[in-house]
Amino acid sequence: MSQHSGVPPLTIQRLPLYLRCLIQLQSQRVDVVNSQRIAELAGTNAAQVRKDLSYLGEFGVRGLGYEVDSLVVHLARWLGLQHTRNIAIIGYGRLGAALQGYGGLQDRGFLVTAVFDNDAEKVGMPISGGIVVESMDRFAEGVKENNIELAIITVPASVAQGIAETVVAGGVKAILNFAPQRLELPSDVTVRQADLAAELQILSYHLREDFGL
Amino acid sequence: MSQHSGVPPLTIQRLPLYLRCLIQLQSQRVDVVNSQRIAELAGTNAAQVRKDLSYLGEFGVRGLGYEVDSLVVHLARWLGLQHTRNIAIIGYGRLGAALQGYGGLQDRGFLVTAVFDNDAEKVGMPISGGIVVESMDRFAEGVKENNIELAIITVPASVAQGIAETVVAGGVKAILNFAPQRLELPSDVTVRQADLAAELQILSYHLREDFGL
Repeated sequence: MSQHSGVPPLTIQRLPLYLRCLIQLQSQRVDVVNSQRIAELAGTNAAQVRKDLSYLGEFGVRGLGYEVDSLVVHLARWLGLQHTRNIAIIGYGRLGAALQGYGGLQDRGFLVTAVFDNDAEKVGMPISGGIVVESMDRFAEGVKENNIELAIITVPASVAQGIAETVVAGGVKAILNFAPQRLELPSDVTVRQADLAAELQILSYHLREDFGL
Repeated sequence: MSQHSGVPPLTIQRLPLYLRCLIQLQSQRVDVVNSQRIAELAGTNAAQVRKDLSYLGEFGVRGLGYEVDSLVVHLARWLGLQHTRNIAIIGYGRLGAALQGYGGLQDRGFLVTAVFDNDAEKVGMPISGGIVVESMDRFAEGVKENNIELAIITVPASVAQGIAETVVAGGVKAILNFAPQRLELPSDVTVRQADLAAELQILSYHLREDFGL
């Protein structure tokens, strides 16, 4: 069992947020930060920040806070961001194309190095980044050639399960799924469901509160 | 103070997930469900489900569970989904176009009824859904004409803050922000940050665990 297997899932979900806040502080040349300030930036509370960071080891100096640079390095290591991880996008429709061109990934540890689609009209098409759209038939080879570790699925819901199974058969164990379809996959595969409607429903809850219903 | 102002933010974030799972059970003609089964579908634990749902009132029957239909109605009401809420997309680039065409919104309570962009070449362009791209100069009028309650921002990070201020000035209090830029807005505005890189970093954490580093 690895050292950090006891980290609660919700703590893991907050680590990228803390990392983003700390990198923002770095850019403002802040050297030391306390849990209260991290909490303000992250939209949580200081006790939560201290508890979450305590899973990563002993860092804070009581009454002083955390050294920003070393906490950034440590968080990045915990998130497995020591090296850039290569991503395949599966489905080169509008969403796939938008994500392939999305600028906010590379400076946060990720690079799209391959794009797959089943549409014969798209296969062979050169797109930005020196990438050529490949057929899903070649997925397993493409994974090896491009050292792919993560897949982003942007195919229609009706075919998402089959595509995901091909992804897993190709050796990829981490999937971000934009298809509005729950995937049933082996337990050693990690799936994050990108759920736009759920985000909107959370906003809707707050609208309801505003109107005092 | 409204009845539900004490609901913890993380509980609110889970309500859409429970709703999705319960609608799935409805489609399978399940009448009654216990917290253990909801937890399995939602990827959490039964105690958490019971605690989260307890904020909404007393529903479960001890030893029996929850009546699926009435819990769906109740959750939808809590999430302010009694009526369809109209959305404006701001920024008709690849991501804006992908989101405008995304099929997974309407059956979950949302309808894109307006699209805005500052690019003179796009303004006036008819797109799907009988929508014509409008200039941001007309945002406030467009909000009134289309009864817009939520905005999805898909503009470049460099202009996101200014655009968001125009959105708020136009009377919209709920924003889903895809620009990789933290927005500073009045406290009565609710912002959800769609952070793709954070989702990938959570996946990366699990890759790290798999490799036992």
